Amino acid sequence: MSTTVSPLAPTQVPAMPEIAGVRLATAAAGIKYAGRTDVLLALLDPGTAVAGVLTRSKCPSAPVDWCRAKLKGGTARALVVNSGNANAFTGRTGREAVALTARIAGKAAGCRESEIFLASTGVIGEPLKAEAFNGVMDSLVAEAKGDYWLEAAKAIMTTDTFPKVATARARIGKATVRINGIAKGAGMIAPDMATMLAFVFTDAPLSAAALRGLLKQSVDDTFNAVTVDGDTSTSDTLLAFATGAAKDAPRISRASDPRLKAFAKAFHGVLADLSEQIARDGEGARKLVEVVVEGAASKASARRIARAIANSPLVKTAIAGEDANWGRVVMAVGKAGEPADRDKLSIWFGGIRVAHKGMRDPAYDEAKVSAEMKKPEIFLKVALGMGKGRDRILTCDLTKEYVAINGDYRS
Amino acid sequence: MSTTVSPLAPTQVPAMPEIAGVRLATAAAGIKYAGRTDVLLALLDPGTAVAGVLTRSKCPSAPVDWCRAKLKGGTARALVVNSGNANAFTGRTGREAVALTARIAGKAAGCRESEIFLASTGVIGEPLKAEAFNGVMDSLVAEAKGDYWLEAAKAIMTTDTFPKVATARARIGKATVRINGIAKGAGMIAPDMATMLAFVFTDAPLSAAALRGLLKQSVDDTFNAVTVDGDTSTSDTLLAFATGAAKDAPRISRASDPRLKAFAKAFHGVLADLSEQIARDGEGARKLVEVVVEGAASKASARRIARAIANSPLVKTAIAGEDANWGRVVMAVGKAGEPADRDKLSIWFGGIRVAHKGMRDPAYDEAKVSAEMKKPEIFLKVALGMGKGRDRILTCDLTKEYVAINGDYRS
Repeated sequence: MSTTVSPLAPTQVPAMPEIAGVRLATAAAGIKYAGRTDVLLALLDPGTAVAGVLTRSKCPSAPVDWCRAKLKGGTARALVVNSGNANAFTGRTGREAVALTARIAGKAAGCRESEIFLASTGVIGEPLKAEAFNGVMDSLVAEAKGDYWLEAAKAIMTTDTFPKVATARARIGKATVRINGIAKGAGMIAPDMATMLAFVFTDAPLSAAALRGLLKQSVDDTFNAVTVDGDTSTSDTLLAFATGAAKDAPRISRASDPRLKAFAKAFHGVLADLSEQIARDGEGARKLVEVVVEGAASKASARRIARAIANSPLVKTAIAGEDANWGRVVMAVGKAGEPADRDKLSIWFGGIRVAHKGMRDPAYDEAKVSAEMKKPEIFLKVALGMGKGRDRILTCDLTKEYVAINGDYRS
Repeated sequence: MSTTVSPLAPTQVPAMPEIAGVRLATAAAGIKYAGRTDVLLALLDPGTAVAGVLTRSKCPSAPVDWCRAKLKGGTARALVVNSGNANAFTGRTGREAVALTARIAGKAAGCRESEIFLASTGVIGEPLKAEAFNGVMDSLVAEAKGDYWLEAAKAIMTTDTFPKVATARARIGKATVRINGIAKGAGMIAPDMATMLAFVFTDAPLSAAALRGLLKQSVDDTFNAVTVDGDTSTSDTLLAFATGAAKDAPRISRASDPRLKAFAKAFHGVLADLSEQIARDGEGARKLVEVVVEGAASKASARRIARAIANSPLVKTAIAGEDANWGRVVMAVGKAGEPADRDKLSIWFGGIRVAHKGMRDPAYDEAKVSAEMKKPEIFLKVALGMGKGRDRILTCDLTKEYVAINGDYRS
């Protein structure tokens, strides 16, 4: 774990309200770390609906396989997350560890194993000793309480430099409902890679189908629009839970229900907030970079170009060097393979147009651009002039600290 | 330019023979650098055939556009290459600079402008003052000579830390023909990006179609199988010239001609040698990494997986840290999106199997693997167990020096 908090960390942590139907507890099970919590239990009232989005990796972790299977049921009674060991690429022992964890948690929580959801983050390729959960699960169930969100976010951190929480409220009909989210982001844990985990809870009475629809509406422009290094974890997991315990709120079965409009916006906001915090805690990040591509042939085309820019080591190192190096942006546009015309391309850094119609903008003021590049938040826009496709990706710069974090721990 | 030669540079530079029909000269035209040569002229005897492979970037440089058009003619009389300015993203002035360069060179060499081939490498987005060639072209033509290969390779360097040359000979029928190549690789030049340029010359009497066929056969497994950072230049250019001046060699019109078998092998060897030298001179590289993927569903699938591994910042930083971090290799396989089965995957570092059938190989000796990881050349193999597809990519590690080279020059 890093001891230095990212300079891009939010300056204010929101007060996290309780969510009716959700109780939380954490413990130090000694999975890998000493002197910190490494297990989170979230207990969910009967009738809680669940939906999720899981990594597209062809080599997913054992808990991802578990969640994918259990999501079909649509209901959840508990979430167990551990940090310190990802239980990924652990073969048969990984599947056994997952089953054992669910058995231990189901027994303690008094529910079916199929209603237990699991996520693990940490070392890859090391067997997870799930027996360790035996010693803590009963007391986790006994101690679980509603007012414990920041501690919950801390227990799932690996090399994150700050806990990630977000909250919002919205009206459904005449009732006010709440949405809380926690996440962990792109930190590394020796000897292995980052995992993005996010868990969102609401007391709104939504069906699993409605939750799935809400996730589908929001995930592409939030969690799928963040990249640190273009590397996809075997364990990425986003789960949303709706307890339905809010008083007087109408039951909603479809995401398209017009009564859900305000809620959908608030839900999107929580996902956007958490995913931005992940970019702000990118390994070694010193700058948050917003890449906007407009005028592309389509939104999908804009996404691919934005991704090529956001993942380009040359663009990212230039930004680390506070250099408005639009030539490298041209390079990244060119390599994306999407419809583009060199002579229609314009590029802005920090709102200042530096390249226009296929060449350097003769009007731009180098001193103003340099001042923009010194800021901690960099806005990079590309206009292609091909169509109406627009997209946005958040990323961070590529610094020597990134290489140090990921290359120095063995020497 | 770097003053420190890459530790991966070849220890021996081959003696470069003359190629009948090729004369070379270099000059210092003061395009950007002081105190070094920055223009190469290669004069080619009448009847020289030409073929080429150009960047797939959708935003190519002006010289790339020029070459793409002129390659249709199939004949060449001169090649002019400058370093210091890439003449990329320079709009109309770029096209004018290209036309002016061809006019100056055609006049001095006494040939049609359409038989002049051009390449530029260096700063992007800055107008190239082609008038500078006026002052040097006549003397370049007057001084050109056959024995000047190493100087030619030096004149096209940007931040390369060593000149790249390769040579081979082969029999066609009863005649011995020669093949010489020069290249420049993945160096950066403030404020801009690397360009891969390579020029191969032979005295064999080959048609342009035969040359095209030879390039097509070889380029995928040589220049297209090298990656430093996954970023594609706007200017990548590989040109092959056949003067036909070798004595007693039969004229060959098709690459599939059986008499070309030995030549094709030697030609491939020159391309492989030059492209490996580019990986060896990758920015900040301290280790040459050979990634082999076998057992994939197809060769194309193996290529995509090998590329995902070779371009993964997490894999590359792990190798920089001398860490046999197979978990990150699993991650890269997983994110490639190609057919793969976690539980069939095996991974080797330096010939030692570290992961087998979905988990850590219990038999491997950590000390032996650590010793392998300390070597300057790392062999990384992945077996997928899905089919017979196999491919190989060369890359290098990702070091703090890479970030320094690409991020530090403005601060």
